[in-house]
Amino acid sequence: MTEISIRLGELVDRFGGQLLGSADCAIVGIAPLGDAHERQISFLSNSKLKAQVETTRACAIIITEAEHASLNAPRVDNFIITANPYVYFAKLAQYFYTLNAIRPETGIHPSAWVSPRAVLAASATIGPHVSIEADCVIGEGVHLEAGVALGRGVQIGAYSHLYANVSVYQDCVLGERTIVHSGAVIGADGFGFANEKGSWLKIPQTGRVVIGNDVEIGANTSIDRGALADTIIEDGVKLDNQIQIGHNCHIGAHTAMAGCVGVAGSAKIGRYCTFGGAAMILGHLTIADHVHISSGSMVSRSILEAGQYTGFYPLAKNADWEKTAAIVRNLGSMREKLKQLEKIVKAKS
Amino acid sequence: MTEISIRLGELVDRFGGQLLGSADCAIVGIAPLGDAHERQISFLSNSKLKAQVETTRACAIIITEAEHASLNAPRVDNFIITANPYVYFAKLAQYFYTLNAIRPETGIHPSAWVSPRAVLAASATIGPHVSIEADCVIGEGVHLEAGVALGRGVQIGAYSHLYANVSVYQDCVLGERTIVHSGAVIGADGFGFANEKGSWLKIPQTGRVVIGNDVEIGANTSIDRGALADTIIEDGVKLDNQIQIGHNCHIGAHTAMAGCVGVAGSAKIGRYCTFGGAAMILGHLTIADHVHISSGSMVSRSILEAGQYTGFYPLAKNADWEKTAAIVRNLGSMREKLKQLEKIVKAKS
Amino acid sequence: MTEISIRLGELVDRFGGQLLGSADCAIVGIAPLGDAHERQISFLSNSKLKAQVETTRACAIIITEAEHASLNAPRVDNFIITANPYVYFAKLAQYFYTLNAIRPETGIHPSAWVSPRAVLAASATIGPHVSIEADCVIGEGVHLEAGVALGRGVQIGAYSHLYANVSVYQDCVLGERTIVHSGAVIGADGFGFANEKGSWLKIPQTGRVVIGNDVEIGANTSIDRGALADTIIEDGVKLDNQIQIGHNCHIGAHTAMAGCVGVAGSAKIGRYCTFGGAAMILGHLTIADHVHISSGSMVSRSILEAGQYTGFYPLAKNADWEKTAAIVRNLGSMREKLKQLEKIVKAKS
Repeated sequence: MTEISIRLGELVDRFGGQLLGSADCAIVGIAPLGDAHERQISFLSNSKLKAQVETTRACAIIITEAEHASLNAPRVDNFIITANPYVYFAKLAQYFYTLNAIRPETGIHPSAWVSPRAVLAASATIGPHVSIEADCVIGEGVHLEAGVALGRGVQIGAYSHLYANVSVYQDCVLGERTIVHSGAVIGADGFGFANEKGSWLKIPQTGRVVIGNDVEIGANTSIDRGALADTIIEDGVKLDNQIQIGHNCHIGAHTAMAGCVGVAGSAKIGRYCTFGGAAMILGHLTIADHVHISSGSMVSRSILEAGQYTGFYPLAKNADWEKTAAIVRNLGSMREKLKQLEKIVKAKS
Repeated sequence: MTEISIRLGELVDRFGGQLLGSADCAIVGIAPLGDAHERQISFLSNSKLKAQVETTRACAIIITEAEHASLNAPRVDNFIITANPYVYFAKLAQYFYTLNAIRPETGIHPSAWVSPRAVLAASATIGPHVSIEADCVIGEGVHLEAGVALGRGVQIGAYSHLYANVSVYQDCVLGERTIVHSGAVIGADGFGFANEKGSWLKIPQTGRVVIGNDVEIGANTSIDRGALADTIIEDGVKLDNQIQIGHNCHIGAHTAMAGCVGVAGSAKIGRYCTFGGAAMILGHLTIADHVHISSGSMVSRSILEAGQYTGFYPLAKNADWEKTAAIVRNLGSMREKLKQLEKIVKAKS
Repeated sequence: MTEISIRLGELVDRFGGQLLGSADCAIVGIAPLGDAHERQISFLSNSKLKAQVETTRACAIIITEAEHASLNAPRVDNFIITANPYVYFAKLAQYFYTLNAIRPETGIHPSAWVSPRAVLAASATIGPHVSIEADCVIGEGVHLEAGVALGRGVQIGAYSHLYANVSVYQDCVLGERTIVHSGAVIGADGFGFANEKGSWLKIPQTGRVVIGNDVEIGANTSIDRGALADTIIEDGVKLDNQIQIGHNCHIGAHTAMAGCVGVAGSAKIGRYCTFGGAAMILGHLTIADHVHISSGSMVSRSILEAGQYTGFYPLAKNADWEKTAAIVRNLGSMREKLKQLEKIVKAKS
């Protein structure tokens, strides 16, 4: 594989920033300061790594104006000055990744099964053992990898990429440039039952899952279809692996959830929120925009004010935990003793 | 698609209840009070929605006798009086869902692979890319969707429905009318190892998973096979998504578990229990019938008495949590101070 | 199926231990003391079961020297004396399991799709609807079950077994004798984004997952590929079901994790650790060798000292929990009262 290079000047033309140094230096990729070689560009996004600017072998560095001004004797001659070097890094990393990616052949693999009543863009790539039921609509440049199964009437927006063994149930809608990782399940029945004398009667789940543009859904994540109305995932939402989204949830744009988060049914979650790993949100709650939930926290009430919220038991050596847990169990009696003591002391004052 | 309608009188003949009003009004479906149109029936299962009874456009309402007696000036003329309108709703919703469902073609899809030594009912529907190993027995009306993989000797009871990409390991048994959602794995090896000088020796897992009738298993849920004896899921159990059931567990009839619950090996769980999302149950415990575990709770001991149990750290603003968590870590010294204070005060009394 | 038997003397030749009794007794399998029949061997690994040694029908018992010396009137004449009967049991159980296993036919199932540019050992078994992309290398005796999907350039070491519907992304490497259960996903993109004015820019994940020898990975577990460097799972690691391993994690040899554990990105976990079910480990932490984390515990800081650590809220009846949780929320004011009381009391002393 011959490496494809791009001139530094061309990078700045495409991605912005102020160029200091030679526009002609040829770049083949981007790497951290400590790893970069002479034909790679690097970036300083964490002040702690500043010392590496003087030792890196990178041919150019993406850096803020302030950091650049405070450099002593950089080994490097070429800089791109930008307000957010990490964002610039992400854009360049994407650029080089796409440049070097092996494009899959478009068309339908002979082992795939596609209903004659499905509509596929000619530029779509349909992998081995894929199955596509009637009335599906597959957009331009969509890539479905091996074993993807689409139920009846599924719509996949342009340039979306579903990895191997993703399952999408009937009538669900995925936006454009959406990425769904292996094992994810979109549109399974919500957990809806009526209790008749102890046993459970299934309530048919007739809503859909409707997913916006630029959404990413992690491996083995499940998003249930709505009971009557739809489950909604807005644009730019990022869900990590092993996440559970219950029926009729609504997740606002650009909210991100780390692995193992669970959201019970009918929760309404705002925009620009973040959820740490294994956070758990009860059903029918409302979470405002810009709420940040720490990992391992249980959200059992609505949160109407932006901010950071936490709720997990602190870790300790097991013997210490045994002691504090026993006290926690008896906090009531401890409080009682304190009250009695207060009475006695105050009576004497 | 032309809508299929049914007379109100016919509904009452099928599903019971006392009819008030015209038996002839034609119904095409069921919807909540606020959404229903003139050819739909609705229901009042939540007193808070009572005001909607006076504004709904539904042609009939399912209601309790007491609620009906207390109505002022209902806009509607037709009522079905029943003790539990929500259960009645579930039955009608199922009825209309089935009425309007597109029935899959029976038979074996040409892309499926079925061992010549498997036995399939003629009324079964085997989807694309399904694989069925030797000695499997597939009942009447079973529906296996795309990519379902059945190991050797699996039995699937009549009218069960396995969605796309479900995996069932050898010798497991599923009852009748069982629903298994995409990505679920039935019968993988339990987590059984002997420790020899630090490294782990695998103990072969030779039991099965045996699942009763009318069970529903959610997307990406895993139920491990037993080590020697079987893992048992009794009739009517409902498991949501992302659940883990360890080897040799026994789950009693009509118990329901919400998403992300984990049950470690050899737990024996009673009937008619409920587990909130992400509840976690340690191994070798016994849980009585009619136990209800709140979401996010860790069950670390057996529970032999029915009731509701809870154990999760309360959520707070992060700064407040930082303070209380620091105190929790030092509860021992706080208790010590309290004891010393008690001594001093009592000595003076 | 005719049972295959082995002489007791031959077992001792293969697996060690000291034989007491007849070398000629013929054994067809191994079972617990209470279940074993006359042609099976059993074992005493738990002193609580000692009474069963006098009633078991097993033809021989694996036992420690000390336990054997303290027997009164065993019904059995034949013993294998060994330091760790449970380990001996595991080895015999494996032996009999393999003896009786139905070997799959080697070769490529006609419904599988294998790139002409993949390299497969002739002794590999490739199941129905498997797909293997270009540049994959599949070792001797590998078994890929139905619907397994391997991306470009995947390497699977000899005698590894991937169950149905496992997905492995491009360039990932699995060692020898590795077992991966259904629904597991190896090598999906890590959760890496740069935030640009609220929305998330994807950072391409170009590292791999590299898995050692004798690793077992549970059903529906996900292991993400590294961002730039690799995610590493060392030899002998055992991961249960529903586990999430974030990008760039490094898990030391012979560490075991029970179901539903989550490990955030870039955590460095030592060797010989154990993690109870649903334990959660934050990103960028370091965990020393021989650390044991209790179930349901949240690890929010590095642990540099071996030992057992715990952190979960103790379970209680819901009403009791309501009380203690309210006190926990107000521990700050309780501590304040205690301080004031101390001041008053001490001022008077």
